[in-house]
Formats: sequence, C-alpha cells, structure tokens
Amino acid sequence: MLLAILNIAGIGVFAASGALVGIRKDFDIWGIATVAVLTGVGGGILRDLLLGITPPSALDNWVPVTTALIAALVTVIFHPSFALLRRTIVVLDAIGMGLFAATGASIAIDHHAHAFAATLIGMLAAIGGGVLRDVLANEIPLLLQPADLYAVPAIVAAAVVAIGRTYSDLPSQVWVIAGLIVGALLRLVALVLGWRLPMAPRGVGYNRRRRG
Amino acid sequence: MLLAILNIAGIGVFAASGALVGIRKDFDIWGIATVAVLTGVGGGILRDLLLGITPPSALDNWVPVTTALIAALVTVIFHPSFALLRRTIVVLDAIGMGLFAATGASIAIDHHAHAFAATLIGMLAAIGGGVLRDVLANEIPLLLQPADLYAVPAIVAAAVVAIGRTYSDLPSQVWVIAGLIVGALLRLVALVLGWRLPMAPRGVGYNRRRRG
Amino acid sequence: MLLAILNIAGIGVFAASGALVGIRKDFDIWGIATVAVLTGVGGGILRDLLLGITPPSALDNWVPVTTALIAALVTVIFHPSFALLRRTIVVLDAIGMGLFAATGASIAIDHHAHAFAATLIGMLAAIGGGVLRDVLANEIPLLLQPADLYAVPAIVAAAVVAIGRTYSDLPSQVWVIAGLIVGALLRLVALVLGWRLPMAPRGVGYNRRRRG
Repeated sequence: MLLAILNIAGIGVFAASGALVGIRKDFDIWGIATVAVLTGVGGGILRDLLLGITPPSALDNWVPVTTALIAALVTVIFHPSFALLRRTIVVLDAIGMGLFAATGASIAIDHHAHAFAATLIGMLAAIGGGVLRDVLANEIPLLLQPADLYAVPAIVAAAVVAIGRTYSDLPSQVWVIAGLIVGALLRLVALVLGWRLPMAPRGVGYNRRRRG
Repeated sequence: MLLAILNIAGIGVFAASGALVGIRKDFDIWGIATVAVLTGVGGGILRDLLLGITPPSALDNWVPVTTALIAALVTVIFHPSFALLRRTIVVLDAIGMGLFAATGASIAIDHHAHAFAATLIGMLAAIGGGVLRDVLANEIPLLLQPADLYAVPAIVAAAVVAIGRTYSDLPSQVWVIAGLIVGALLRLVALVLGWRLPMAPRGVGYNRRRRG
Repeated sequence: MLLAILNIAGIGVFAASGALVGIRKDFDIWGIATVAVLTGVGGGILRDLLLGITPPSALDNWVPVTTALIAALVTVIFHPSFALLRRTIVVLDAIGMGLFAATGASIAIDHHAHAFAATLIGMLAAIGGGVLRDVLANEIPLLLQPADLYAVPAIVAAAVVAIGRTYSDLPSQVWVIAGLIVGALLRLVALVLGWRLPMAPRGVGYNRRRRG
C-alpha cells in the first residue's frame, strides 16, 4: 500500500519533470503530455521489455498514464510557482528514483533474472524515463553530463535489492524498502554535499573532433 | 485484401517521408534507405515489441522492408516533383496513419491487451515511425512541436477499435475500417480547418534554461 | 572458444569507441562508462529484444558489461595514445562488426527467424550499439552520414550466415566464421580503396526545409 502510493508519487514527479522540459521547448499541449507520460512511465516500460512482460504493465492499466497526465496538467497550470517547491520536488524525485530502482530490481528477480542483471535492470527502470525525455527533447541526456550523482544512487538501490533477495530469505518488501531508503538518502546526501564524479584527463595527443 | 493494399500504401508513404528527411540531411543512399525503412516499419516493430511478438512481423516477412526500399528509391529519383503531389501525399499519409492506429489496436486486442493498452499501442504504432525518423535525424520529433493535429487523430482511431472490439460483437474488420475512416477524416479536417492544440501559459517566475 | 574471445574483443573495441565519444563530449566518469557499456552491448540487447530473449543475454551474465567497463577505463587512461593504435583499432572494429553481424544472424536462425529477418537482425546487432552511442551523444548517427561503408559489410556478413544456415546442412560455426571473414574483409577493403555510396541527386524544385 505504501509502495503503491510512493509509486504514484514517483510517476507524478517524473512526469512533471518531463512536462517542464516540454514547456521550456515550446511544445503544444499534446507534446507536453507525451513527454510527461514517457518520462513518467518510460523506465517501467523499458524494464518490462527487458524482462519480456508484454504488454508492459504501465500500459495495461490506466493508473500510471492517468497519473502522468494529471501531473502534466498540474505542471502546465502551476509551473510558475514550482520554484517555490524546489526542495519538495527534489526530495520526491529522489524517493521516486530510489523506488523505481528498488522495485525494478525486485521485479527482475521475480522474473528469474540473476542478481547482476537485476541490478542493471533496476537502474535502467530508474533512469530510463529521464533519458527518453532528453532524447525526445533533442538534448544530451542530463544523466551523461557532469552533474550531481544520480545514476550511482540508482545502481546502489538496485544492487541492495538484487543482492538481498538473491542471498537472503527476508521477504522482498524488506529489501525494496531498504533499497529505496539507501538510494534516496545517497542521492540527497550527494546533493547536499555537492559530490561529483571526476571527468577523464584530457590528453595533448588526443585529436578532438568537433562539429561546427 | 483492401487492408493489405492500404498497409503497403501506408508503409510506402511513411518510408517516402523518411527518405525525404534523409535527402534533406545529405545522407548517402544507405542512410536514406535506413531512415526510410525505419520510418515505414518502425511503428509496427515498436507495436510488436510491446506485445511480445518476436521476431516482429515487419522483419519476418520480406514485403514491408521491400516496399519501404522501393518507396525510398522512387523518392530519391522523383523527389523534385513531389511538390506537385503534395495533396496526394497528405491524403495517403492520413490514411496510413489511420490504418496503422486501427490495425495496431486490433492486433493488441488479439494479444489480450485491455482496451486502454490497445489504444496506446495503436497510437504508438501510428506515430512510432515518424518519431524514430526525427530522433535519427537529430531533430525534435515533429509530433511534439506545435503543428497540425497528428497524434490526436491516431489516438481516436485506436480508441474506436479498442473500445469497439472490447464492448461489441461486430467482426474486427468492421472496427478497423471504422477506426481508419474516423482517424483519417479527423486528420484531414483538422488540416483543412487549421486546428491546433494550445500551448502552456508562460509564467513570469519560471526560470527558462536555454541552450546557446 | 575462438568466437568467445573475438566476442570479448568486439565488445571491448565498441565500448572504447563509445568511451571516446563520451570523453570528447566532456561527460563525467559515469557518463563515459554508460556510453561505453551501451555501445558495447547495445546491439546485442536490441537483437535479443527483437528475438524475445529476456532478460537479454548481455545483461544476464557479468562478462559483457565488465568487459565494456574495463575497455572504458583503459580508454579514459590511455586515450591520448590511441592515435598510435589507429590501425589496430580499425581492424579490431571490423572484426567486431563482422562477428556481431554473423552471430546475430545465427542466433536469430536458432530462434526460428526466417533468413530475411535473420539478415536484418544480424545487421542491427552489428550497428545498434553505434547508433545508440550517437543518439545519446545528440549527434546524427555516423552510420547515416556519407562515410566509409559500414552497414553494407554488416548486412553481407549477416546474409552469408542467414542464407547458409537456411539452405545448407553445414554446421552453424562454419557459416558464422565465413560471415565474419566476408564482412570484416569487405569493410577493410572498402576502407583501403575509399569506396563510398552515392548520395541522392538534388532537384531544383525541391523545397529545402532548414533549421536555423
């Protein structure tokens, strides 16, 4: 029950981030709704495709898409006030990310994936929507650019669930909640402390190829 | 039989639109052929992946890809004259869109999708090829930009089939033809009357992030 | 055994090409690793999705992703010296391409695809990683631009395997090795002789649409 509510909150926050990109890019209402829905449910669809769950559960049930559409509508109407909610949105986004990574890994284990595959699939479930949002908006995915830690907490959350469920007998919900908490906390601590990953050293001999 | 002929015409028109983008972007013959094929059959492949039909029927049968290649060849040779055919192409494109949405929804119902999922999958079958075309050409999908109504007729066509097949006992072909006609007409009427969807209101407090 | 070693070499070379793009785009370590892994295993994942093999074998086994990560690490440290290795890298890349096309087609035949579908799926297995790399880096896929022959050798390699396995009784390994050799040689000969495909003739009447 708690997980179901968090799942809806996660889809809503992800969809709102998609709607904001659509508004910034001057899409019409349809374009905003499309990006919002794909950002909200894209990670789950990718997870289901990788696991052979067809039709993907995010499409075969009206709740996820409707949640994303409502979030898009709220964003279109109220986005000028979102600056005031910045902290709330960041916290909800961290929870959504942790939850999608943890449930993604757990569903992968349910479908007989190994712990290694479950970790990768959980991570993809958490980040897939954001990558799809940026590809559709014709931008380099935020996730690939030097920025706050995002994918690392997702992979840690998924690994907690994948390893926990493979090597212990505790019920799956315990591991999902543990993964969610670890992932969301790691994301928030990294944000507060400004942790970043290093970039590659640039070599003198490396011939940069640039596009005009 | 009529549906099979329309299907080939639809793949051909979609493939020609892909070939035109490839020509405009100065791709070589291979690049043009690739974009044409992916635009022509991409929506059907996406539909089959979402339904677990593997290998996708557009690949497991030589007709669709061959149709797209012939359309690409015709486009490469005759594209300077296409301006004269503009109206014919617009009408064929509307029919192809309506057909792919209607047959996509019907195939989804055949594979035990709910009406809601079948509507979304039919819509994706109709628009997937065009989105793939624009992502490969490194442009924001036309579909997301303020433009003539395109996706709304697709979703309406798919909904007619999904709801009709779920809640009535009429044969599936009746609903596919009804969806096709409703979708294509709605598209053409919207074009003639210049219907557009609204954009989101821009707020003063919203901090626009722009790329140079 | 030889095929397994070549497979690892192929994943490594493809991953290194992804890491180079990530370094050039100033991604952080995570972004570089992500592009490297997706370039190395993306083609195999696409192949498995099209064949309904879930979870994809490149995720359900730690070797491919680990190989790609090691290749990314080596690239990050040593990329300034890669100019010296240019010829070796080009030869390894041609072998990787031929191998992925040949094994992709063979795996498709194992999963009951027709020869036509197996050829297309083998080709997609060989080129999918590179296309994914370029889409994530927000560039037009190299493959679509006028350049050295790349996809044509891939489709030839896949066709050799698909046709050979469908119409002869020789063991599948024979055809995989034949396809690999034909594809890699064709690629290298095309490079040395500077073969290119023609572009479409530009018509006077064609109304070019350009983006600012």
